[in-house]
Amino acid sequence: MPELRKDPIIGRWVIISSERAKRPSSFRPVSEKKEATQCPFCPGHESHTPPEIIAYRDSTSEPNQKGWSLRVISNKYPALIVEGELTREPKGLYDRMNGIGAHEVIIESPEHSRDIVDMTDEQVRDIFWVYRERMLDLERDSRLKYILVFKNHGEAAGASLEHAHSQLIATPIIPKRVAEELEGAEKYFKFKERCIYCDIIRQEISDQERIVADFDSFITVQPFAPRFPFETWILPKSHQSSYIEMSDEDYLILARCMKDALKRLKVALNDPPFNFMIHTRPVSKKSQDYYHWHIEIIPKLTKIAGFEWGAGFYINPTTPEEAATYLKEISL
Amino acid sequence: MPELRKDPIIGRWVIISSERAKRPSSFRPVSEKKEATQCPFCPGHESHTPPEIIAYRDSTSEPNQKGWSLRVISNKYPALIVEGELTREPKGLYDRMNGIGAHEVIIESPEHSRDIVDMTDEQVRDIFWVYRERMLDLERDSRLKYILVFKNHGEAAGASLEHAHSQLIATPIIPKRVAEELEGAEKYFKFKERCIYCDIIRQEISDQERIVADFDSFITVQPFAPRFPFETWILPKSHQSSYIEMSDEDYLILARCMKDALKRLKVALNDPPFNFMIHTRPVSKKSQDYYHWHIEIIPKLTKIAGFEWGAGFYINPTTPEEAATYLKEISL
Repeated sequence: MPELRKDPIIGRWVIISSERAKRPSSFRPVSEKKEATQCPFCPGHESHTPPEIIAYRDSTSEPNQKGWSLRVISNKYPALIVEGELTREPKGLYDRMNGIGAHEVIIESPEHSRDIVDMTDEQVRDIFWVYRERMLDLERDSRLKYILVFKNHGEAAGASLEHAHSQLIATPIIPKRVAEELEGAEKYFKFKERCIYCDIIRQEISDQERIVADFDSFITVQPFAPRFPFETWILPKSHQSSYIEMSDEDYLILARCMKDALKRLKVALNDPPFNFMIHTRPVSKKSQDYYHWHIEIIPKLTKIAGFEWGAGFYINPTTPEEAATYLKEISL
Repeated sequence: MPELRKDPIIGRWVIISSERAKRPSSFRPVSEKKEATQCPFCPGHESHTPPEIIAYRDSTSEPNQKGWSLRVISNKYPALIVEGELTREPKGLYDRMNGIGAHEVIIESPEHSRDIVDMTDEQVRDIFWVYRERMLDLERDSRLKYILVFKNHGEAAGASLEHAHSQLIATPIIPKRVAEELEGAEKYFKFKERCIYCDIIRQEISDQERIVADFDSFITVQPFAPRFPFETWILPKSHQSSYIEMSDEDYLILARCMKDALKRLKVALNDPPFNFMIHTRPVSKKSQDYYHWHIEIIPKLTKIAGFEWGAGFYINPTTPEEAATYLKEISL
């Protein structure tokens, strides 16, 4: 059973994942570049993965068989597990909890080598739609406080399998990075009585220095204070605190916007490894005035070194204004 | 001139470093494994570096010539620069500051291939002593709020030159990671009227589960909630809020303790890339009841992926108890 432990000084929780236990000698990097014939995510290999939680498939096909266009499964090596009771206990001055949660994998396409940038708009819309379905389902589990959807693309960004997939981890606490955003946004709202993200969008539209693309309901921007070169955010233009509050049509527009952003990064930076993550409000029934959901995309171009780890302070060699100019000039 | 920018939501500052500006095509990894004959840090190549700030050298030798055993220079590609005025100004709802600070390189030995683990205790003591000298000097600059000393060892840990060196960056704000520790430690002190680090040390000595080594004035432990496998902390056993408060003799004991910790990690993990950083109280004349300086060592064994970036929540595949057992069993 994985375990959650809390740093007593700064209050950061970590997952000690015994299911993924490693001996010192097993830390040498192993590349798992598998051919389609060996890939557990390819059609025909459904029995190599845990059974599917949900799949979009031909009405004639059977669960856990070929015939699907998108498939959600439990992670075979989960960081957190669904079964069990959520117990929290002290250990002297320390705190620990059972590693309760959910860890799912979204297999985005049956084709081994098809990434989001090569899919049709409707295929990408389905990916965004299934995130919503899983969030709605998991929100009913009262042990869970947060659901984080993210994608690792490329080995340097942490992907262990090449076949296009994203992941979802539901946690029994609100993760630190999200808690910081909630706190900052609430503080701003108390002072200004406005959503800080809405104010940022207004300023970006007026400045026109960091906007990469504008899609009806969404904008793609380089943030003013990016940690990483070419860090890119996608935000809904109207106020929405949760990803699941989007209108049905907006999932298709978001798909177009995401494809556009990823294509620009791919061309500008020679197909870089990247991560994206969806930041939405914590699990709860009510929407919030002060928080605004969004997607952060971070291409993996620089190394994180001692200064960044020690300070939590990032050195970024590219201004977001330059990055926005490069990305806008890409002709697709 | 580099620039400091503040994320308006979570308040994190970043350095936008124009001196290190990169075009999109220049992000491809470049290995700078230089032979001693080309290494700017080797004796005889003093003119290839900025002039020295301080050096330990033969009394007969001249500054910026051969004859030194340790040398401190300004970083040729500084993240922050010393010259100029510290101005802070708004940009709509955003905040920016001039990139004022200091960025120095400590060349730890004249020998190209001698790492800390291979040096004499006295050589390592000198490294720790020169950190202190630089801190004392920089503390007199009223524009600076924090001095962070750190080391990147190995390319994967961000080292761009092989010759053993550490670095120091002085910043005009207190870095986020340190501010979080100060805040957490102060909160605990207000509640308990005790230093949380002193309490941790007491509990670790009583538990005997995570201690790797005990050196008179210092202990080496695996923290209870480590972000990374084999993350290792060195703490002074008696209460000291600042690195510069150590007794003169303790610099030598710290040298022995650090050599011991790095040797154990080297043997257990096959010479891993690593970072270490010294966390001490911010620049100010008075010592603090609630903060306790320490060193964090993080071997680079796992990849940081979307979940970690999105959540600020780390998944660690090795328990600190297992790691402590492995490290203790290494015979040196």
